[in-house]
Amino acid sequence: MIAKKMVKYVEGSSVTRAMFEEGKKMAKEFGAENVYDFSLGNPSVEPPKAVAEAMKRILDEKEPGFVHGYMNNAGHEEVRKKIAESLNERFGTAFTEKNIIMTVGAAGGLNVILKTLLDPGDEVIAFAPYFSEYNNYVGNFDGVMVPVPANIPDFQPNLSGLREKITAKTKAVIVNTPNNPTGVVYSEETIKELSSILEEKQQEYGHAIYLISDEPYRELAYDGVEVPYLTKYFANTIVGYSFSKSLSLPGERIGYLVIPDEVDDFQNILDAASVATRILGFVNAPSLQQLAVAECLEEKTDISAYDYNRKLLYDKLVSLGFECAKPEGAFYLWVKAKEEDDKAFVLKAKEFHLLLVPGSAFMCAGYVRIAYCVSPEMIKRSFSAFEKLADAYR
Amino acid sequence: MIAKKMVKYVEGSSVTRAMFEEGKKMAKEFGAENVYDFSLGNPSVEPPKAVAEAMKRILDEKEPGFVHGYMNNAGHEEVRKKIAESLNERFGTAFTEKNIIMTVGAAGGLNVILKTLLDPGDEVIAFAPYFSEYNNYVGNFDGVMVPVPANIPDFQPNLSGLREKITAKTKAVIVNTPNNPTGVVYSEETIKELSSILEEKQQEYGHAIYLISDEPYRELAYDGVEVPYLTKYFANTIVGYSFSKSLSLPGERIGYLVIPDEVDDFQNILDAASVATRILGFVNAPSLQQLAVAECLEEKTDISAYDYNRKLLYDKLVSLGFECAKPEGAFYLWVKAKEEDDKAFVLKAKEFHLLLVPGSAFMCAGYVRIAYCVSPEMIKRSFSAFEKLADAYR
Repeated sequence: MIAKKMVKYVEGSSVTRAMFEEGKKMAKEFGAENVYDFSLGNPSVEPPKAVAEAMKRILDEKEPGFVHGYMNNAGHEEVRKKIAESLNERFGTAFTEKNIIMTVGAAGGLNVILKTLLDPGDEVIAFAPYFSEYNNYVGNFDGVMVPVPANIPDFQPNLSGLREKITAKTKAVIVNTPNNPTGVVYSEETIKELSSILEEKQQEYGHAIYLISDEPYRELAYDGVEVPYLTKYFANTIVGYSFSKSLSLPGERIGYLVIPDEVDDFQNILDAASVATRILGFVNAPSLQQLAVAECLEEKTDISAYDYNRKLLYDKLVSLGFECAKPEGAFYLWVKAKEEDDKAFVLKAKEFHLLLVPGSAFMCAGYVRIAYCVSPEMIKRSFSAFEKLADAYR
Repeated sequence: MIAKKMVKYVEGSSVTRAMFEEGKKMAKEFGAENVYDFSLGNPSVEPPKAVAEAMKRILDEKEPGFVHGYMNNAGHEEVRKKIAESLNERFGTAFTEKNIIMTVGAAGGLNVILKTLLDPGDEVIAFAPYFSEYNNYVGNFDGVMVPVPANIPDFQPNLSGLREKITAKTKAVIVNTPNNPTGVVYSEETIKELSSILEEKQQEYGHAIYLISDEPYRELAYDGVEVPYLTKYFANTIVGYSFSKSLSLPGERIGYLVIPDEVDDFQNILDAASVATRILGFVNAPSLQQLAVAECLEEKTDISAYDYNRKLLYDKLVSLGFECAKPEGAFYLWVKAKEEDDKAFVLKAKEFHLLLVPGSAFMCAGYVRIAYCVSPEMIKRSFSAFEKLADAYR
């Protein structure tokens, strides 16, 4: 009696549950310290202390009706103003509070903007490998997801592939940099080329193609690499941001959309996005969290911990002969499976108590994702397991 | 370039904005103290102090990675357990944590369960007058909203109307008691009859019809009136609850769904609802709020303040000859307009600086909603305006 659309999800969720149960069973059988779970993208670094301090200060000092009450669906005006000012200072943009809509995390923001934009049958392009929830978000509004095959081995977006996939029905392109699952940061050169293709295709088809930049990993970039701010390169860019990773608050569901003035059909998009926030049932982003992040815009999660893990694991895997995309951001390594079938490779890894995610879950077979947002001790303990995995394919 | 479905919403939102702007203009022109805004259902009573205390204690005592981190999409297990136990104690039910899914407010919960249940074209019945957002929530999943005309003058659900409206395509019936906008509480007798009609129609059509009980106002009942717990009367009941009014936390977006074991297709609904929570972009209800409400299940908002307002305004309006549904719950009075056209009546009221909501916004013309979640001082100041409004129709 559930909706037909939901049946496949329920099947998928029972697979996930089975995996989770098996992980627990393994931990019981072999000891939790002998199971190496690299499957989850859950921040291992604690939120900056300033976040809890800000929450407590707000609870102590501000009027409860204001702290916990309704506000404009787009969010507290002074919060949006602070975010706009912070972006302007960092990226030389010229946003005001009206360009910012607070959202229930980046996932909420993506759903809001897709609801705003998509008519049934509209096409949305993403570059494989990509976060497979995009398929579901686009499916929520009867859009059609169009994957562009991966650019192997550097995993910058495949721009000739993009050019081929754009049609009269293309409404949006989603990019995610720093990237989940590859850890790759899109170069400025790539962004410029991508923008010029989109400009050209907008001309050709006579309508806007929106670039949706999903940026939960923006602050997680290493080796001083720059993550270009996309609204500066392409006018029809809409940014979805999240504090889940930047302040380690994934359970609090707090993020925002940036809808710049320059965006085609700006006022309608802005109005429709506020309405979408309401009618999708979010109503508004959680109030206390809005107020707290606004006081922590200068705060940063301790990325040196992720950076340490990144080098530790990357160096080890490369020394063992694994091929790995250059990891400049996020907290993932993207590693070539040692056999064609990535799912079989994941099963082989599990024999050595290594829990990895097959690349086919990101629309890109033949690879696996290793999430290094874990303790460095676990990484070190896992080395012998990776050695055995490498040996198994020698 | 926005989605066609969104165009009418954007028009609607500009009407709302115009009203809001006009309200501000009136306050400027006549002084804020001389404008009587009865249009918003925003709690006027502060949250119990225990809520902020609980939040601060959790922030001080619990591990930040736990407080702000991801958990199961359905919510923290110990939170769901406490809620189940609290319900069992209050209502003699037998829920466990697996029957509870934490949601981003009741609006989030309704969207989750409608996504779970509705195939395009499935019909959902609601009793006029009802919260018009139901139309939008059902529309999100291409369901068809079927209103049952109001039962005048007592505004208990129109059960003969219900019987006529149920078809082979009826998937769900939404009820809301205590009711927005009428303030009416559905009697146990009504609930029993409603249940037996649904039982009979399930037999007739050979499939489940789900009763969705939207309960943001459950704790706001006066004069010792009982609000029956619907899962005890009809097996296929799913409850959507919110702490927005019971703890005055509307901006924090925290509530839950109850999906009892007895519900037809229980396991699939449970799994699908968890998935829906994720893919709609909520992911999970805000974590700190989950933990805080679990420590405040015995807390109650100070309903005596609403009760005082209720009597104050009800007595005055009745003395002026207004006809009003018996207000036993929520924080609304539902008053017959003094002319057929409720929108014209609302315009007339505005001449006296009274801001009311026309009943046609709740699918029930000829009435207006007066939200008395305001200060008693404003109510007293408004008396002369109501007198003038009554005089205008003499």
